[in-house]
Amino acid sequence: MSKRILVVGGVAGGASAAARARRLDEHAEIIVFERGPHVSFSNCALPYFLSRTVADSADLVMMDPAQFNKKYNIEVRTENEVIAINREEKTVMVKNLPDGKEYKETYDALILSPGGEPILPGAIEGIRNDNVFGIRNVVDIAKLDAYIRDHKAENIAVVGGGFIGCEIAENLVHAGYTVTLIEAMDQVMTPFDYDMAQILHKEMLDNGMTLIVKDGVKKIGSNVIELSSGRQVKADAVVMAVGIRPETTLAKNAGLAIGETGGIKVNANFQTSDPSIYAVGDAIEVFNRLTRKPMRLALAWPAQMEARAAADHIYGIRNQQKGFIGSSVIRIFSLLAASTGLNEKAAKAAGIPFEIAYVIPSDKVSLMPNAHPIHVKLVFETPTGRLLGAQAIGKGEADRRIDVIAALISMDGTLEDLKNMELCYAPVVSTAKDAVNMAALVGLNLLHGVYRQVPLTKVRELVESNACIVDVREPGEYNAGHLLNAINIPLSQLRQRMEEIPKDRPVYLHCRSSQRSYNAIMALQHCGFDNLYNIAGSYLAICLYEYPQDVLFNREKIVTEYNFK
Amino acid sequence: MSKRILVVGGVAGGASAAARARRLDEHAEIIVFERGPHVSFSNCALPYFLSRTVADSADLVMMDPAQFNKKYNIEVRTENEVIAINREEKTVMVKNLPDGKEYKETYDALILSPGGEPILPGAIEGIRNDNVFGIRNVVDIAKLDAYIRDHKAENIAVVGGGFIGCEIAENLVHAGYTVTLIEAMDQVMTPFDYDMAQILHKEMLDNGMTLIVKDGVKKIGSNVIELSSGRQVKADAVVMAVGIRPETTLAKNAGLAIGETGGIKVNANFQTSDPSIYAVGDAIEVFNRLTRKPMRLALAWPAQMEARAAADHIYGIRNQQKGFIGSSVIRIFSLLAASTGLNEKAAKAAGIPFEIAYVIPSDKVSLMPNAHPIHVKLVFETPTGRLLGAQAIGKGEADRRIDVIAALISMDGTLEDLKNMELCYAPVVSTAKDAVNMAALVGLNLLHGVYRQVPLTKVRELVESNACIVDVREPGEYNAGHLLNAINIPLSQLRQRMEEIPKDRPVYLHCRSSQRSYNAIMALQHCGFDNLYNIAGSYLAICLYEYPQDVLFNREKIVTEYNFK
Repeated sequence: MSKRILVVGGVAGGASAAARARRLDEHAEIIVFERGPHVSFSNCALPYFLSRTVADSADLVMMDPAQFNKKYNIEVRTENEVIAINREEKTVMVKNLPDGKEYKETYDALILSPGGEPILPGAIEGIRNDNVFGIRNVVDIAKLDAYIRDHKAENIAVVGGGFIGCEIAENLVHAGYTVTLIEAMDQVMTPFDYDMAQILHKEMLDNGMTLIVKDGVKKIGSNVIELSSGRQVKADAVVMAVGIRPETTLAKNAGLAIGETGGIKVNANFQTSDPSIYAVGDAIEVFNRLTRKPMRLALAWPAQMEARAAADHIYGIRNQQKGFIGSSVIRIFSLLAASTGLNEKAAKAAGIPFEIAYVIPSDKVSLMPNAHPIHVKLVFETPTGRLLGAQAIGKGEADRRIDVIAALISMDGTLEDLKNMELCYAPVVSTAKDAVNMAALVGLNLLHGVYRQVPLTKVRELVESNACIVDVREPGEYNAGHLLNAINIPLSQLRQRMEEIPKDRPVYLHCRSSQRSYNAIMALQHCGFDNLYNIAGSYLAICLYEYPQDVLFNREKIVTEYNFK
Repeated sequence: MSKRILVVGGVAGGASAAARARRLDEHAEIIVFERGPHVSFSNCALPYFLSRTVADSADLVMMDPAQFNKKYNIEVRTENEVIAINREEKTVMVKNLPDGKEYKETYDALILSPGGEPILPGAIEGIRNDNVFGIRNVVDIAKLDAYIRDHKAENIAVVGGGFIGCEIAENLVHAGYTVTLIEAMDQVMTPFDYDMAQILHKEMLDNGMTLIVKDGVKKIGSNVIELSSGRQVKADAVVMAVGIRPETTLAKNAGLAIGETGGIKVNANFQTSDPSIYAVGDAIEVFNRLTRKPMRLALAWPAQMEARAAADHIYGIRNQQKGFIGSSVIRIFSLLAASTGLNEKAAKAAGIPFEIAYVIPSDKVSLMPNAHPIHVKLVFETPTGRLLGAQAIGKGEADRRIDVIAALISMDGTLEDLKNMELCYAPVVSTAKDAVNMAALVGLNLLHGVYRQVPLTKVRELVESNACIVDVREPGEYNAGHLLNAINIPLSQLRQRMEEIPKDRPVYLHCRSSQRSYNAIMALQHCGFDNLYNIAGSYLAICLYEYPQDVLFNREKIVTEYNFK
C-alpha cells in the first residue's frame, strides 16, 4: 500500500517537504494544498520587485503546479484551502476557493506549513483602507506595486523596522519614492543591539529615508497618517510590516498543542502532539540552542531544514535536533548587517552571565581599494568564554564573519577556538588576522582580566561627569574632532608624558578603534596605573552613536572622514 | 632585571612578536634585526603595486623604525643581519650591512622569523641575468617595476603558478603587459585539485594570459626564453616564482633541529630544540591537524599567530596547539578561489579513506543580479563523515563558504554538522539552503549509499567507451550542447519514458548541476533500477573541464552560456 501524504501550504516549507518525500518514495501519493494562487515562490525576494531588481513579478514564482507535477509527480492544488482536520478519521476538509465547494481527503501523514500572516492592528483607524498593504505573497506585492503606480504615489510610509519593513523601505527608495519608516521601538532590526542599530539608522538617513522611532500609527488617511505622538506624516500608501502572526487556527481547531510562544509545538522530528501530523516553518516554535527555551524563528533556512526533517521522519530517518541559533543577514543600502545567536539584550534576558567584545578593524588590508571598517560585536559567556552570539555591520563581508561565528557556536566553540580560527586571507579579501580573530583576542583579554572596558553607552555619562578621558590618537586626528574634555596624549608620546595621567581616579582611554588605546593601557598598567578602562568601540563607534554635538567637538567632519558614507 | 628579547626578521612574524612582547612587558629590552631596509611591510600586497592598485611602493611599508620606536618602544635595526648564534653564551653576532662591521648582542630569549627566499634554480641558463627577478620584498617589487618600465618591456614571463606567481601575473595583465604563465606541473595553484584548477585556467585564458603547463624553463635570453619542450616564449623580463626555500641557515649553523620537511622544528609553543630560541613563520614546520604529520605552511595568518604564541610563552602564557589546517584564498581576475584542509590529492597521499561531494549551485537566489554558479568540492572521511577539506571557486563569496567549513574542521565537525549549519541568508547574498549545506547533503547521500557517483575525471572514458549516459535536462538545454552519445530524457518526461533506460548495464546520469539527475536517480531506484551513477559536477563542471570538442557537442556555446565569462 503506498503512503498518502498531504501538505498544507506550498511555499518554502511545504514545497520542500513534498519534494523531499517524493525522493524518498516514488510511489507515495503526495498532494499539496495552497490557499493562494502560487506555490514555490521566492518569499524573501518579494521586496525586490518594487525596485525592479526582479523585473517581473512572475519571475518570483519559481515553479507552477504543472511543472511540479511533471518533475516530481506531485499534485499541487492552488486556491484550495484546508479548513479542518479530523484526526480520528485522518482526513482533512478542503475548500476549493474559486467555486466554494468543500471536499474531504484522507492522509497517512499530514505536514502543516501554513506560515504566518502579517499583523494589521485593528486599533489603528483606517487600517482597512485601500491604501494599506500587508505583504505576504506575490499577489500582495504586485497589488502594492500597482496601487502606488496607478495612484502616482509620492510618499509612502512603511510601518515596522524588521526585515520585511527595512527591505521594502529600501526598495521603495530605489524606486524613487519618498519613504518614511516608522518603528515603535527605539531602533530598527531587533537582532541588533541598540548600539549596533545606530549604524543602520545612519545609513537609512544618509540614503534619504525619513526614520521615526519610538512612535506608532494612530490613524491612516488617504494622503497623511497621524502618529501616536500627534506627528503627521505624508503617506499616499502605507505598508504594514509590524510582524507576523503564526497561522495556528487550523492546528488549534484540531486540538494540536500550541507552545508558550504561540507557535505550534513540535518534537525533535517536527511532529506535533499528534504523531501523524508534522508542522514546519513560521507557524511553529523551535528549541533555542543557547537559551534552552522555545522560540519562534521565521526564517527561510529553518523552514527548509524542518520540512526535510519532517519528510525524512515519515520514512524513519531521524533528525539530529541540537536546537537552533538563528543566523540572518540584511542588506541596507551599502551595508551588510548580519547576526547570529544571542545579542546583548537576549543574553541579559536569558540570565546568562556574559561580556562583550567590540572591534572595528578594516575588512581588508587597509591599502586596498574598497577597504572599509567592519563593526563586530561579540557576546560570550563568562567565565567559560563560550560564544553566545555576534553582530557584524559593514560594507564588506559581514555575513562571512557571522557565519564563521555561527559555525563555532553550533559546535559549542569558545573564544579560544575563534582566536585560533584559520580563515582564508588575501589582501583584496580580508586581513591576515581577521576581524573575528581580533574580536576573540579582545574577548580573551577581558575574560582573563588583562584590562577592563566601559561600553559605548557610558560615554555620555563620562563626558557629562567630567571623567578623565585620554585620547591616544595623533594630534591631527584629535584636532579634527574629539570628545569634549578628552585630553590628547598620543601613544607615540605616552612614555614621555605618563606623569600627566592621574593615578587617583579612573582614567578612560580610547583611540580610533581601541587598538592603540589597548597598547597604551598595557604600557600604563606595567608602570603602576591600576584604574584604567578602554572605551569599547573607541572613536569610530562613538561617532556613529547618538551623541549630539555637545559631546563631540567637530563631529560632522569626523562622520565624513569615517568612510561609512 | 628586565628581559632582553632579540628578534631576527622584521616582517609579518617578527614585527608581531616584538609588538606582542612589548604589550606583555613594558620594561623588556626588545631589538628587531632586519637585513632589508624595511620592517613591517605588507608582504601579501606586493604584487598589487605592479597594477598600481597600491599607488606607491612606499605605501607598502606600514611603519618605519622611528614609528616602531615611538609607539612600541622597540628598537628596530634595519640593514642589520644576524649572522651567527652562540647558544652557550646566549649571544648573536650581527653584521651592520652598510659598513660591514660586526657586533655582538646578548639575549634572554631569541625569536627567529627569517622567512623564506625565492628559489632561483641554478640549472637554468641565464638565471642570473639582469631581466630575471625573484620577489621577496618592497625593494624587489620596485626593482621589477622599474626594470619593465625603463626597458619598455612588452612581454613578461612568470614562472610558477602558485599564489605569488598567479598574483604577479594577474597584476601585470592589469598593467597592460602581455603575460605568459609557465608552470611545471599540469595545473596552477596546488591547493586545488586538477578538476577545480581547470576553472582557474579558463579564467586566465579568458583574460588574455598565455598559460603553459607541464613545461619548464631551460634558458633565459634577453627577449625570449626557451622551455624544456623546446618551445620559445617572448619575454623581456622573467619573474621566478617557483617556490620559497625556508631560511634555515642561521638555525642550522646554530645546531637547531631541522624537521623532515626542511623547516625549523618547533614544539607546541614554537620553541626550537633550544628552549631559549623560538622560531615562527615561513621558515618553520608545523603540525598538520588532519594528517597528524609535519608540514610547511607559508601563510600570513599562521606567521602572526605563531609570533604571538612565541611572545606569550616567553611570559608563561601557554599556546593551545591543535595543529594547523591551512586556509587560503586567491582572487584570479573575476574569481575568488578558496580552500581549506586537505584536497583530494592530499587525502589520498595521507592514506585517509575519503569520498568527495561536488556541487555547483547558485551563489545567490538565482533571480538576483550577480547570481553566479559557485563550485564547491568537499572532501570527507569515510565512513565517519568527518570533514577533511574543501575548495570553492566562483565570482561570489567563495571565501565565506570555505571559512565556514574551516570552522567546522577546526571543531572536528562532520557532514551532519555542516548540513545543520544555520548560515546568514538574504536573497541578495546567498540562498536559503547555502552551497555548503547542499554539499553536506550530497556527501551524506554518498556516505549512506543513497546513490552512487562517478567523478568528472571519468567522463571522457565513459564517452569513449560508449557507456549509457542519460542527460535529464530539458530538450532546449540538451540541443544547445551535450555529451556525444548522451541520450536526452528530461526529468519532466522520466516517468513516461523509463522503459528507454537499460537495466542490464550501468547508466550514468547528469543534468546541469546534478540536482535534477539526483531526483531522477531516486525515482528510478524506487522503480527497480539498481545500476545508476550520478556524474559529479554534471554539465556545468563538464563544460569547464579539459574535454575537447570531440567529447561535447556545441561546447563553445555552452561555455558562453555558462555565465563564467
